Amino acid sequence: MIDIAVLGYGTVGSGVVEVIDKNNSSINERTGDQIRIRYVLDLRDFPGDRVEEILVHDFDIILNDPDVKIVVEVMGGVEPAYTFVKKSLLSGKSVCTSNKELVAAHGPELIEIAKKNSVNFLFEASVGGSIPIVRPLNSSLTADRILEIRGILNGTTNYILTQMADEGWEFDKALSTAQQLGYAERNPEADIEGYDACRKIAILSSLAFGKSVNYEDIYTEGISKITARDIQYAEKMKCAIKLLASSTCEDGKYYAMVAPFIVKASHPLYSVNGVFNAIFIRGSEIGDVMFYGSGAGKLPTACAVVADVVDAARHIGKHIRVAWSAEKLELTGVKSATRRFFVRVSGKRVECEEKIRSVFGDAEFIETDEAADEFGFVTPPLPESSFDEKLNSIPGVIGSIRFEEK
Amino acid sequence: MIDIAVLGYGTVGSGVVEVIDKNNSSINERTGDQIRIRYVLDLRDFPGDRVEEILVHDFDIILNDPDVKIVVEVMGGVEPAYTFVKKSLLSGKSVCTSNKELVAAHGPELIEIAKKNSVNFLFEASVGGSIPIVRPLNSSLTADRILEIRGILNGTTNYILTQMADEGWEFDKALSTAQQLGYAERNPEADIEGYDACRKIAILSSLAFGKSVNYEDIYTEGISKITARDIQYAEKMKCAIKLLASSTCEDGKYYAMVAPFIVKASHPLYSVNGVFNAIFIRGSEIGDVMFYGSGAGKLPTACAVVADVVDAARHIGKHIRVAWSAEKLELTGVKSATRRFFVRVSGKRVECEEKIRSVFGDAEFIETDEAADEFGFVTPPLPESSFDEKLNSIPGVIGSIRFEEK
Repeated sequence: MIDIAVLGYGTVGSGVVEVIDKNNSSINERTGDQIRIRYVLDLRDFPGDRVEEILVHDFDIILNDPDVKIVVEVMGGVEPAYTFVKKSLLSGKSVCTSNKELVAAHGPELIEIAKKNSVNFLFEASVGGSIPIVRPLNSSLTADRILEIRGILNGTTNYILTQMADEGWEFDKALSTAQQLGYAERNPEADIEGYDACRKIAILSSLAFGKSVNYEDIYTEGISKITARDIQYAEKMKCAIKLLASSTCEDGKYYAMVAPFIVKASHPLYSVNGVFNAIFIRGSEIGDVMFYGSGAGKLPTACAVVADVVDAARHIGKHIRVAWSAEKLELTGVKSATRRFFVRVSGKRVECEEKIRSVFGDAEFIETDEAADEFGFVTPPLPESSFDEKLNSIPGVIGSIRFEEK
Repeated sequence: MIDIAVLGYGTVGSGVVEVIDKNNSSINERTGDQIRIRYVLDLRDFPGDRVEEILVHDFDIILNDPDVKIVVEVMGGVEPAYTFVKKSLLSGKSVCTSNKELVAAHGPELIEIAKKNSVNFLFEASVGGSIPIVRPLNSSLTADRILEIRGILNGTTNYILTQMADEGWEFDKALSTAQQLGYAERNPEADIEGYDACRKIAILSSLAFGKSVNYEDIYTEGISKITARDIQYAEKMKCAIKLLASSTCEDGKYYAMVAPFIVKASHPLYSVNGVFNAIFIRGSEIGDVMFYGSGAGKLPTACAVVADVVDAARHIGKHIRVAWSAEKLELTGVKSATRRFFVRVSGKRVECEEKIRSVFGDAEFIETDEAADEFGFVTPPLPESSFDEKLNSIPGVIGSIRFEEK
């Protein structure tokens, strides 16, 4: 019998209890032991609920019970999660968490404490919902040098962009629909401004490259400025707009960013729609490997947490190495990366074409039926810094979006 | 320092040595220890080769060296691999293998011996080349009930089918080209008749369902009877022909099969081309999760083996549970499964249409420009057994292919 405690009885926490109840026999069979939920911690009361009898309001009850071997932290946010997790690990309890803020902010410190105490700090559910990605990175792709991670890591923004494309909606309407359906939170900033995807790519990059990528160092741009017109242009080019999170290693330099990109129909991420996530990993020898699945949702995320519980239970007394050191990975600024850009300009193409060609060289021009008073063009590949500079000399620029070449 | 021995210096074996040499520092960093190749076993000599000094012809030298903690078995075939692996595990050495014949034939026995000796028997490279699939199934998808596995598991046949579609070639020409390029073996039977995919789906199904799926019980049909004309019909229907390996759990009954299927353009496996593999797993709560990558090749497969070496090295003295019992999983025959079928008939559609509709009901007819003396039709969904029976009453049948609905 292995006793566990669940910190937080919100969406994911109640999902964890539901999954363990529902799949009890197969989970025990796979664990080789019995998993029992001994406590659920929450500030609220849940009279009549299945957890009523095991609900506690005081974390110390859990901390001081030596029978509790695994703590499931699904409260979200850095505090008090960080304090509870640290105390749990220090007292010899493994921790499984879905909390990306916590992992992005304190990952290497908590891994180190887990190591010293022969327990495990596991966080599969912090990235990619139900998609196995953290364990494959840490335990399956260990023989190769990872050169690139590129993916759609946030289901809310992907749902909004998909709706904008399918229904022709503006951003605000797609966002409010997503909120009504529970795909976006009432305060949607973390999703739509890219902060959620930023923390996730920081975690994956740290695991891939072995050193700490500070999420605050990652250039991050959300989708709140994307308009229905931008998407019309993308469709005219047989492309879609996706919020991509990426990190790459090129000639010993590391780059990481989160931003909307125009991707071609031939791109493998083009057809990842709705709340789905997909993650490409390119290794020096293995080439491209892709993982795809439901990026969020109560039960998919809960299943990822419970799988970590099974793994922690299989490893009582034994720390599984995680090669993520506290040493900081220096990122090179995105401004030195070379790519193409899509630019929208107010005015008539015939009047501006010569000027644009004189500045950018061989640009491709795009006009849509919907907008007679503006046009778009795609630049040849050039460094971001030089793009910014050249763009200043073009009058009437409405906006620009990066172009993903792969 | 952890000494390892490599059994077999063929394609994968030399890849393992190459990967460990090349990525030495990152592999050691991820292991938390130094991996050293102490022996390579092969019947041949390799004068002047990097392994010349560590080459042995006698397995007992490896077996009797207590410093060798991990044995890499990449010889292929059941014997002598089985004998060597069993002896290694019994003497307290972990084994990492790419050998699907060995795993499909003796998996649960070798896992049990590993468990009793506190070592590990790891076989990530036996399925899906570089794609992490065995470890995700055994360690990441453990909280959910797996309902279905469906994939393209053989790169050779997928390459042949892709070439037939792209170039309009007949099977024989595509096969001989694949052989010239090293994508098919000189004796290609194991690939083209589906035996390779059959062993792989047996392994994945056993891991997913926890009991042993005997590969000899799996209905297996290869692609050697697929013609350029069949592919013309598929293209006319905006479909492709793919060799699919699948296993499903429906209402407590288990089904498994390997056969060519017609898949629609909207199907996620439609666009998996060339030597790539892709595997869909559907769980009760997590929905669909997909894994995609290079299904074969020297270095991708070697990387999967070496990742198992890293995992084995991290777990010296500690067995990682694998929930694959020796108890046999009873499969229900595929004849009771319901699906649609594509049928080719010799003759004129107008003369046969009435008869076909009287037997099959609401069939859809397809004619191609290339063949005036025959036509095709797709049946409504019906059980295979009843399809077989009804087909007997249609004169002039040239052949039939199953239709994948998803």
